[in-house]
Amino acid sequence: MATKKFTGPSPYTLKPTYPEVDFMHTEYVNNVAANSKTEAPPVVGAIFGLGRAGSIHLSNIINNPRIILKYIVDDRPERFNGLRSHWKLNDNVTFLTSKDKDIVYSDKSVNVVFIGSPTYTHHEIVVNSIANNKDIFCEKPIAESIEDTKKCYEAAKAKRRILFAAFNRRFDPAYRALKDRVRKGEVGHVQILKVTARDSPLPSIDYLKTSGGVFHDCLVHDFDMSCWVLGELPIRVQATASALIPEVKAIDDFDTIAFLLTFPSGAIAIGDNSRYSVYGYDQRLEVFGKNGMIKVENERPSHSTELYIGQSGVTLNPIYYSFPSRYNVAYRREIEHFLDVVQYGVTPDVTSWQTLAVSKIATAAEESARTGKTIDIDWSEDDIPAVYS
Amino acid sequence: MATKKFTGPSPYTLKPTYPEVDFMHTEYVNNVAANSKTEAPPVVGAIFGLGRAGSIHLSNIINNPRIILKYIVDDRPERFNGLRSHWKLNDNVTFLTSKDKDIVYSDKSVNVVFIGSPTYTHHEIVVNSIANNKDIFCEKPIAESIEDTKKCYEAAKAKRRILFAAFNRRFDPAYRALKDRVRKGEVGHVQILKVTARDSPLPSIDYLKTSGGVFHDCLVHDFDMSCWVLGELPIRVQATASALIPEVKAIDDFDTIAFLLTFPSGAIAIGDNSRYSVYGYDQRLEVFGKNGMIKVENERPSHSTELYIGQSGVTLNPIYYSFPSRYNVAYRREIEHFLDVVQYGVTPDVTSWQTLAVSKIATAAEESARTGKTIDIDWSEDDIPAVYS
Amino acid sequence: MATKKFTGPSPYTLKPTYPEVDFMHTEYVNNVAANSKTEAPPVVGAIFGLGRAGSIHLSNIINNPRIILKYIVDDRPERFNGLRSHWKLNDNVTFLTSKDKDIVYSDKSVNVVFIGSPTYTHHEIVVNSIANNKDIFCEKPIAESIEDTKKCYEAAKAKRRILFAAFNRRFDPAYRALKDRVRKGEVGHVQILKVTARDSPLPSIDYLKTSGGVFHDCLVHDFDMSCWVLGELPIRVQATASALIPEVKAIDDFDTIAFLLTFPSGAIAIGDNSRYSVYGYDQRLEVFGKNGMIKVENERPSHSTELYIGQSGVTLNPIYYSFPSRYNVAYRREIEHFLDVVQYGVTPDVTSWQTLAVSKIATAAEESARTGKTIDIDWSEDDIPAVYS
Amino acid sequence: MATKKFTGPSPYTLKPTYPEVDFMHTEYVNNVAANSKTEAPPVVGAIFGLGRAGSIHLSNIINNPRIILKYIVDDRPERFNGLRSHWKLNDNVTFLTSKDKDIVYSDKSVNVVFIGSPTYTHHEIVVNSIANNKDIFCEKPIAESIEDTKKCYEAAKAKRRILFAAFNRRFDPAYRALKDRVRKGEVGHVQILKVTARDSPLPSIDYLKTSGGVFHDCLVHDFDMSCWVLGELPIRVQATASALIPEVKAIDDFDTIAFLLTFPSGAIAIGDNSRYSVYGYDQRLEVFGKNGMIKVENERPSHSTELYIGQSGVTLNPIYYSFPSRYNVAYRREIEHFLDVVQYGVTPDVTSWQTLAVSKIATAAEESARTGKTIDIDWSEDDIPAVYS
Repeated sequence: MATKKFTGPSPYTLKPTYPEVDFMHTEYVNNVAANSKTEAPPVVGAIFGLGRAGSIHLSNIINNPRIILKYIVDDRPERFNGLRSHWKLNDNVTFLTSKDKDIVYSDKSVNVVFIGSPTYTHHEIVVNSIANNKDIFCEKPIAESIEDTKKCYEAAKAKRRILFAAFNRRFDPAYRALKDRVRKGEVGHVQILKVTARDSPLPSIDYLKTSGGVFHDCLVHDFDMSCWVLGELPIRVQATASALIPEVKAIDDFDTIAFLLTFPSGAIAIGDNSRYSVYGYDQRLEVFGKNGMIKVENERPSHSTELYIGQSGVTLNPIYYSFPSRYNVAYRREIEHFLDVVQYGVTPDVTSWQTLAVSKIATAAEESARTGKTIDIDWSEDDIPAVYS
Repeated sequence: MATKKFTGPSPYTLKPTYPEVDFMHTEYVNNVAANSKTEAPPVVGAIFGLGRAGSIHLSNIINNPRIILKYIVDDRPERFNGLRSHWKLNDNVTFLTSKDKDIVYSDKSVNVVFIGSPTYTHHEIVVNSIANNKDIFCEKPIAESIEDTKKCYEAAKAKRRILFAAFNRRFDPAYRALKDRVRKGEVGHVQILKVTARDSPLPSIDYLKTSGGVFHDCLVHDFDMSCWVLGELPIRVQATASALIPEVKAIDDFDTIAFLLTFPSGAIAIGDNSRYSVYGYDQRLEVFGKNGMIKVENERPSHSTELYIGQSGVTLNPIYYSFPSRYNVAYRREIEHFLDVVQYGVTPDVTSWQTLAVSKIATAAEESARTGKTIDIDWSEDDIPAVYS
Repeated sequence: MATKKFTGPSPYTLKPTYPEVDFMHTEYVNNVAANSKTEAPPVVGAIFGLGRAGSIHLSNIINNPRIILKYIVDDRPERFNGLRSHWKLNDNVTFLTSKDKDIVYSDKSVNVVFIGSPTYTHHEIVVNSIANNKDIFCEKPIAESIEDTKKCYEAAKAKRRILFAAFNRRFDPAYRALKDRVRKGEVGHVQILKVTARDSPLPSIDYLKTSGGVFHDCLVHDFDMSCWVLGELPIRVQATASALIPEVKAIDDFDTIAFLLTFPSGAIAIGDNSRYSVYGYDQRLEVFGKNGMIKVENERPSHSTELYIGQSGVTLNPIYYSFPSRYNVAYRREIEHFLDVVQYGVTPDVTSWQTLAVSKIATAAEESARTGKTIDIDWSEDDIPAVYS
Repeated sequence: MATKKFTGPSPYTLKPTYPEVDFMHTEYVNNVAANSKTEAPPVVGAIFGLGRAGSIHLSNIINNPRIILKYIVDDRPERFNGLRSHWKLNDNVTFLTSKDKDIVYSDKSVNVVFIGSPTYTHHEIVVNSIANNKDIFCEKPIAESIEDTKKCYEAAKAKRRILFAAFNRRFDPAYRALKDRVRKGEVGHVQILKVTARDSPLPSIDYLKTSGGVFHDCLVHDFDMSCWVLGELPIRVQATASALIPEVKAIDDFDTIAFLLTFPSGAIAIGDNSRYSVYGYDQRLEVFGKNGMIKVENERPSHSTELYIGQSGVTLNPIYYSFPSRYNVAYRREIEHFLDVVQYGVTPDVTSWQTLAVSKIATAAEESARTGKTIDIDWSEDDIPAVYS
């Protein structure tokens, strides 16, 4: 009976606690306690665009008791009946095409607008929504040019409205926890940050043609992750890139990209990015410093499953196929955060200028890859403040 | 350039597919396609009881467009305002205490009832709901005695109503996939099935006093898993059990249990169960046969996170703390399945007699543990059919 | 530069340490330091039998500078030339067949004997080796009957010689570390111990015919692991078993076995065992108590390798195929331990009576499986002391 | 009995096979079969230098029956007695200091020389050993300058002797298997190769002062891995580096380095390297192409162990602390390969010019890091052939 002596006190004498990383248990506890910020009534919202991201936002908006959805604006009216039936939407929800969008702008009961429509439409919707005193949740980019983006932010500032740029990765629980740990010093001064992003499925060439190029379409997320975790902006950018898919090469874009960012603290960020990963949507982040390393590897559905069939080894489930499943939780949390900003004055996680800063890094990286030159960035010469800290 | 020769055709020439195990991607695809069984209007429902399971069902019901929630019945009226505010419920939802439950029964617009109230109330709610032509989703057990349970099923049969017993584990994607693979023969004839279930957090002694004992409260799930995967009923039951927590011993129950089930095919099921696991809600299942093994290990939130701090090793996140987070997806899918049964005549996954069969195994196992005797079960002598297949 | 403030002191100011679990680094450090117990000259040894285990011992003996191998005794003389050439053995090593084994016994320079020959030969070699003052390392079992085994131990005691029974699993670094942690109380009072052992490859029927049956041939290891970790002997044994392979059924043995052991402290051991696992040599151990759980899962060669090819998921290398690779390190350490006992008087890890105790449990378990009865063991009625502690 | 129908034929009717990745099982099978290339008698060898690598080689040489060790040359004679005792070396082994090294050169029975002494001594030992018709196994670098290195290779060629540069990582089973899979096309045309190397423990400053700088001391391995797997040489080199440890900065070296290599096929190699990793010796390699990805993550001792203590999560053992344990198998296999080259004319895995090629890349990378410039390499302008294929 060598272990009986370790019996110790009854577990009934111990105060129960649970690990906060189990965020779904927290949700449950809050639901049981009916424990929410109860003062605010639901917001009334409209959503523009039901494309890839828009469809995700739609399902989260419908399932969120904090939002009363009033308008769905999309230019494929042939889908309206199906959507109404699929989501069991009652007559309180109105479907519109964009030619009737003024109905949304002029409806004073609508106080938030979600924008998931094509990039070229963003600027107009933002400007008119702000002009009509609505708060905005907008897929990146806010506008097609840096100048237009700045104007949007200035308009929002002038009207004291929220203009929230959706950087979904930040709201993933794993990435968020990594950042929080780094900022508490768990790895010490960061030496190396490594980010991997490989898309799945392969985007259509039509999409790529209007995407603004992989640096502005995809790598901005990697640059944002790097700066967001490190809390600083890079002073040197080195990049290289290949176009190995003929159709990508034909439109003078790249499908395989790598970069180095050197930061004032001496930290170095390393990234690789690909337009197409056959085994799924590969999203990883790693931070290394004097005291250790934190990695966020890929998430997999039913990650607990292990197959040992025959002699071929141990097979685990594939990683998530694409962003809707991989960032399922992040998308829900992003909207909760936006509502906290709108309803309770919480500080927005994404500051206005960060989208401009990553855009500037993207421009530098693309130049480095195209010319072979190292690009040093002098942030002081620009009017963009040092926005990560 | 040793690998350039493996370039192959452009990925644009390949038809995209995705792994079906990414069930969230399927949900997304269906949402984008607005691809649901559209004929049926939403059901109108009432929920009885907002305890541990009831609270989970409530959140899933509120978020499910296929259900219009009309009544919430609970005997803690002091919670009603908080819940209404928390869930932003409008006046279409009525809160009642159980003394007014006849309002629910007599409301002909209500066609489904969800029962999460204490066990001793189940029988009455079931009988009256069936009498009033409502379909029922009921937490196990259906009633406190086998006789009452049989009567409930007979009443349901007579009125051609659905009486669905909620066995949540079956709807977990990992367990479901394991069963499907086993039934396809991937591991061949099963030799060993191993199930582990250790509860977290420690249930209160008040709960345990009315739980019916751990064999009927907890192990019925393990017995169901075993029979459900194997498709047969055991003919021999051996068990042993300890009460190592003084408070559990004081009420003549057990906290540490192990069992062996021997099946006609020669398969053996092995199980261990505990009332309390400090490191989280430990739920595992393993099947071994001539062609291989399939395991479902524990799931963890943000399972992708790896910490390498100092020299203490690699730390992963803890497993889920409790059933609301571990079976989050299962609870949602269970309700979808119930709705498919009610609305589209899908065959219910849980057959009426299975709850009785596992109850009989539980009685045998408890007797084995208490007396030290092996219990052989002759299923033919009873009026319970061989309900797993 | 949010993390620069965590720079801290230069790592050059810190004293280097390393984790002791990296036992190969310890070996390296000891080799660099030439740090061994240097007083003792090498032992002079003979090895009997080059079967499955004997071949492993031979390679470890040849590679161990603490042993001078003088005799190799085996009854397949056609192999001698090949072995001499393969191992580059010089003339100091003599090959013999068993008819000349007296040469070994009477060679006074030989002070240790390693026995890996068939079971029926053990008794004679043990008795004669002890009579000639040699210390013995013997594969289990020591003899074919309990009576003969007791006589061997008594003879060894009378001549004050070491009679070491090889229980190789105990010397595996992972199992050893698990036991040490349990004994330090890391999991508290143990509630559940779970052991899995599935053999690979399938043993020949010829071997099985003379194996003594799976309970004595295989499950003794599982019983030893259980008692060794828990430090107590079981008072109740329940088992069930199937013969699913026709050839195994034909010789009235079992290929699929499960058991429950109940211990005086309330701990329960659960085991499953199989004669054949297609995916490799499956060896696992798990201990669960109030403070947590420790698992030893399967080891794999190049466990770091992960394949993500196509959409089929993540593939890891198969587990070790069989005992020579899985217990490679254990076999080496077992011999080092034996030499420490012989040369430096270290207390043997395996006590004389433990092999008898596990044999008694095996007899009980087989009876339980064959009759369906629970077997309670009263250790006090026997002359076997409570040998695990 | 839903799975009984999958019984299938008895496993006794199947031909046993085992997975070749279990290389230790192959060793065992070969030992049982005494299955070696038997013609060649053992080589007779001398070893120069018992430093970090030399100590590892010494233990492998002593344990290898294919080598008769005759001389150990080291300039710390105070260690000789301890080593003789520790390794139980008999009088056939002679210890010498370097002043007596001519004894080795002039001993015609010595046909192989292992060099693990300080870098500045390599050139002389190589030249004299070759002049005396010995084959050489030499830790990198072969000499301190590229010119001397070339002379060494030319001398070896002239005398038709083997001059083998030890690139240990290539002989690690995981890396080797990765390369073989890549070369078979399993990932298709490689797009991204990613290599991580972080040293542990922190090397002494004295060592660093004479190391030649981190690019030539450490990153040559990363460059070799990249080119060896890809089978091509880079045409563009971009690097950045920081000196975050004050003592490293003081000697104008770097402790934190990242690089990008662009290859003619369009493949990109990304690397990060650090002089000090607190959590162990971090060695990883990843290859990504159109058909998938292969990763070699870190190896850990007893990787099967999982701790679930309290609520702090799941803890795995730390990764290997340093190169002697991490590359334990690689070092043994490297010597076996060298002996195959010497004794059986097997083609050496490391070609003469590869060490020169990686040296050239290291020079370019260091220049890029120091100047911020991208360095394009024109391999044709040099006399180094395109040595990786």
